[in-house]
Amino acid sequence: MFFTCEKSILQEAINVVQKASSSKTTYPILEGILINVKEDKVYFTATDLDIGIETYINANVIKKGSIVLNSKLFGEFIRMLPNDVVSIELVDNNYVKITCQKSEFTLIGNNPDEFPKLPTINENSLYEISQDLLRTMIKQTIFAIATDETRPILTGVLFEVKENNLSFVALDGYRLSLKKVELEDAGNISAVIPGKTLNEISKIIEPSEEKVKITFTPNHILFNLGNTKVISRLLDGEFVNYRQIIPQEYKTKLKAKKSELLDSIERASLLAREGKTNLLKFNIEDEKLIVTSDSQFGKVHEEVSVEVEGNGLKIAFNAKYFLEVLRIIDSEDIYLEFTTNVSPCVVKKADGDDYIYLVLPVRLIES
Amino acid sequence: MFFTCEKSILQEAINVVQKASSSKTTYPILEGILINVKEDKVYFTATDLDIGIETYINANVIKKGSIVLNSKLFGEFIRMLPNDVVSIELVDNNYVKITCQKSEFTLIGNNPDEFPKLPTINENSLYEISQDLLRTMIKQTIFAIATDETRPILTGVLFEVKENNLSFVALDGYRLSLKKVELEDAGNISAVIPGKTLNEISKIIEPSEEKVKITFTPNHILFNLGNTKVISRLLDGEFVNYRQIIPQEYKTKLKAKKSELLDSIERASLLAREGKTNLLKFNIEDEKLIVTSDSQFGKVHEEVSVEVEGNGLKIAFNAKYFLEVLRIIDSEDIYLEFTTNVSPCVVKKADGDDYIYLVLPVRLIES
Repeated sequence: MFFTCEKSILQEAINVVQKASSSKTTYPILEGILINVKEDKVYFTATDLDIGIETYINANVIKKGSIVLNSKLFGEFIRMLPNDVVSIELVDNNYVKITCQKSEFTLIGNNPDEFPKLPTINENSLYEISQDLLRTMIKQTIFAIATDETRPILTGVLFEVKENNLSFVALDGYRLSLKKVELEDAGNISAVIPGKTLNEISKIIEPSEEKVKITFTPNHILFNLGNTKVISRLLDGEFVNYRQIIPQEYKTKLKAKKSELLDSIERASLLAREGKTNLLKFNIEDEKLIVTSDSQFGKVHEEVSVEVEGNGLKIAFNAKYFLEVLRIIDSEDIYLEFTTNVSPCVVKKADGDDYIYLVLPVRLIES
Repeated sequence: MFFTCEKSILQEAINVVQKASSSKTTYPILEGILINVKEDKVYFTATDLDIGIETYINANVIKKGSIVLNSKLFGEFIRMLPNDVVSIELVDNNYVKITCQKSEFTLIGNNPDEFPKLPTINENSLYEISQDLLRTMIKQTIFAIATDETRPILTGVLFEVKENNLSFVALDGYRLSLKKVELEDAGNISAVIPGKTLNEISKIIEPSEEKVKITFTPNHILFNLGNTKVISRLLDGEFVNYRQIIPQEYKTKLKAKKSELLDSIERASLLAREGKTNLLKFNIEDEKLIVTSDSQFGKVHEEVSVEVEGNGLKIAFNAKYFLEVLRIIDSEDIYLEFTTNVSPCVVKKADGDDYIYLVLPVRLIES
């Protein structure tokens, strides 16, 4: 195995696949990157057995072959090299010599035959969306997945295509986040992608119009980004029937400036955080929303100008669940819809119906 | 107590004094900021009993008075307010009402009489140096202070004036860092300033030519930065007689490009870090310095072009002690002076004699 290439190209490829390599594992081969030198391309693969990432670069190949190198050491050394041509050669006994200008790094490699094979997936690219849109869909849903493993299916995001609409849905028992987009000529599907996979994907994809091709098998999903492929297992089990949770009616509807509401809630949550329940109280009156919170240290009283349709209402929420949605919703004005102070509040964009958020209130004994 | 002022001015003052307030303390009043409203100025003070910081702003004063507010909550709330006029009023029972536009924050204050007084220091401003120079002197020495408390005096930096030279000296038993500067008509002094104080000072001062006035008492140092004063206790005891440690002669002298040597040592230290001893080996030959390191994972071999005067030498160091000096020394070219492989190496600037670093080698049984 022997090839040379530009340091920057090599570094970029390592950065991409490193996202799948394990750092804490009892199976040391998973801390490695498989380097596979073929005709005129070098393939890099890493996996933690849940996610696998494979990418290739064009290189000046002198001799074919393969080896597994420790991901962290290999990556850090390459990153610290000057911007010049790097030469990588398997010398003997699994020793790999990496040279660049007057630097020489000899790293002990591992047997490539021990590296787990990624599942082979017949790419029929069922779905295509732009990298930019995929990023948005992940960002606007992933924060609402469950963080504990009590119900493992809720640690993933539902990928659902129905009637030419692709929906991403996340919920954790306290709130639900749904982002949808039209997709032409798309067959129906329902699969749950692990949150961790989507997190890693969103670090790799660019805010570009370039397409991501997505293929499913019964147990896996494959994202094809051109030079890079990401394969992940899917979560087992049925997702919650989320449609029946979303209220279709309301008795009170507010229209608010997103940024103004966010700023007020951030200040109010300062004290809510100090209290044990992280509690925000909303008091909806004529054309204004009063947000209050208190703790042993004091109290905050915030007045937000809103347009109100319907009844006044007093209702309370966990501050975190409001902050998180206001930080990601991409609309200048938003609607908040309420029915009673013990039923969910729905947050919508004023300028589009592609996003819905639902949050349960906190029941207060006094109110 | 009642005053109004611009949010940005208030925030800046809080940021400055907050550096002295305690976050973990059994004495809750020290988590607070003392606000003292006088004629047309508002004074802010915080202290952890080791360091005290006091600053003032000009404000629209409606009523004089004073209170202590929780530093963290007060600071965070002010930071999150819009850029507009903030009004701060002591209402009753130690409740303070902070209002800005439609936000209102009521915070419970503490009795200002319980707040510890900072030592009164008769300012005779013994020494004056620019803020920028003070920053540099701190940065080039503080990294070499001792981090353990075995010898408390070594957790500070020596401030020494002798024959119109001001020297900052730090040492930890393995290396010594000395930065000096000429100071006209300055009386002799020798005092040890706690590292923590210098750390906080360097966060407050600007890279500007404005002067810092420094006054000493037997137990305290006062830095006067204009609107802001920082008072710190000094460390008790005698500093090490550092002059006798610095070798006056050498048998081998190298001249190297600082950046080239730093890059090589950073790469070599990647493996040194994995080994238990963090060991770098230097091999000085004709016109080159070979830096090597190894661990169970492999080995690094770096060649650095240098000018050599005197004998060849094999010597070993803790990588950290070389990295740290190369990151702060402000010279394109540097000299390394050696005597034997068991005596200290001296690092100097090629373009000035205002900085000296000394590092002990690691004794190797084999060499």
